[in-house]
Amino acid sequence: MFRDSLEAGARAVAAHFDHVLSDAADLPVLHAMRYATTGGKGLRGWLVLEGARLHDVAPERALWPACAIEAIHAYSLVHDDLPCMDDDDLRRGLPTVHRKWDEATAVLAGDALQALGFEMVADPRCHPDPLVRADLTLSLARAAGARGMVLGQALDMAAERADAPLDLQQITALQAGKTGALIAWSAEAGARLAHADLAPLTAYAERLGLAFQIADDILDVEGDAETVGKAVGKDAGRGKATFVSLLGLEGAKARATSLVTEACDALSPYGHRADALREAARFVISRRN
Amino acid sequence: MFRDSLEAGARAVAAHFDHVLSDAADLPVLHAMRYATTGGKGLRGWLVLEGARLHDVAPERALWPACAIEAIHAYSLVHDDLPCMDDDDLRRGLPTVHRKWDEATAVLAGDALQALGFEMVADPRCHPDPLVRADLTLSLARAAGARGMVLGQALDMAAERADAPLDLQQITALQAGKTGALIAWSAEAGARLAHADLAPLTAYAERLGLAFQIADDILDVEGDAETVGKAVGKDAGRGKATFVSLLGLEGAKARATSLVTEACDALSPYGHRADALREAARFVISRRN
Repeated sequence: MFRDSLEAGARAVAAHFDHVLSDAADLPVLHAMRYATTGGKGLRGWLVLEGARLHDVAPERALWPACAIEAIHAYSLVHDDLPCMDDDDLRRGLPTVHRKWDEATAVLAGDALQALGFEMVADPRCHPDPLVRADLTLSLARAAGARGMVLGQALDMAAERADAPLDLQQITALQAGKTGALIAWSAEAGARLAHADLAPLTAYAERLGLAFQIADDILDVEGDAETVGKAVGKDAGRGKATFVSLLGLEGAKARATSLVTEACDALSPYGHRADALREAARFVISRRN
Repeated sequence: MFRDSLEAGARAVAAHFDHVLSDAADLPVLHAMRYATTGGKGLRGWLVLEGARLHDVAPERALWPACAIEAIHAYSLVHDDLPCMDDDDLRRGLPTVHRKWDEATAVLAGDALQALGFEMVADPRCHPDPLVRADLTLSLARAAGARGMVLGQALDMAAERADAPLDLQQITALQAGKTGALIAWSAEAGARLAHADLAPLTAYAERLGLAFQIADDILDVEGDAETVGKAVGKDAGRGKATFVSLLGLEGAKARATSLVTEACDALSPYGHRADALREAARFVISRRN
């Protein structure tokens, strides 16, 4: 049932993308933008839609921030996959943007997707109250920038060049930026749209983001490339510290499980209305890709 | 006198950058961000400050959008200079970011500068009215994205791969995106901050942006790399259509001069209060770098 809801959300977000980009110029960069936003799980967009539903925000509104966060997430993947970054050929089971087109198109498509993300949360159709739009923009810029996602990526890059592998505290800080910041924004967006208290969703998202990254590290060890849709076994091959290398495989699984329990507990103010978000948290650590 | 004002503006913008980034993590990406925003003419930031002055907006406020547009402009240069794009070693007379650090740092620093630009216009310290902040954000995202600057870059890339060189209409459309969109946003920002009519500044900026690009094409032919601060003679070497190749050197100069006259005339509703903007327009076509 959660999977159905996730797929329905991804379809709605994809249709909204098509709608928003329908008048854009017919150039490779546009096709690359659509390609990059297609075929993912759409977890971040779904979190926005579900958080909005929880606060009785109309789905037509919530689609704007849902699309925005998927655009920002897609841009980060396109740039991450570049030869000068992670140098990946495969993403979501398909050639990465710079492999299907070229590096210049990948750089530009990523840049345009980032701008598009901000355009969508600042659009009056996202919310009639400009205070909400400005709040969504400011929080999204912080989550995506040098104090959020880019900070996490920069810490990751510094770690790869450092002599000693990171310890648990450092890798948790790295993750909080690299994956955590956008997941937190996604989970909180519904409350922002409704001028509601962010605290329960913030607490939920912090644990969800960490569990998500631990699950990713486990998949890198246990998964096969075909199912995961991208290269696996890369971290161990590079001697890189991960939650698995630091906690052991069983330790990492136990930590992810307890984080999911904590994430679910954080939603208690919402009662059973938040069951779909609880299911999402359990899905995050049971997924195979 | 205009040069003094331009330099004072650039100093104020640089100090504001330092202030905004003072609590950021001490990582190469941060140093690259500061480096990339240093040493330019600061014309776009100055246009914001001057447009704000014209509308009696406090300079402390105007510094936020001034810094924002310089951040967005700097990000575009860092990414433009990458080996997969223009592959430039020199910018503002100094090594480009990917030459001084590496490509991954250049990609990330550009990405973070784009996010920072949006963060600065969405900041409550930029303007107390959230409608103004949301308006600045939306217009900036449009100017920077796939309907503005990135569109211009994508058209430029398509032109390089096309069999026939562009005609005057196509190259004007390309320029309107690539250089024009950010210059227009800069010139209009002061009116946006004051809820004022954008029309005179829009008309001014359209002509200014086009004159600016024609002057750039002339510098590529007449300038020397040391004075210009970046490689010259590249366009002709590539057989690329420019305003000079299409209009001839003298024709291009005449067109730039008449555009500057039109730009100055467009400011007539402001009377002599807009003389500094008129001086800026004349500067744009007389500059040597």
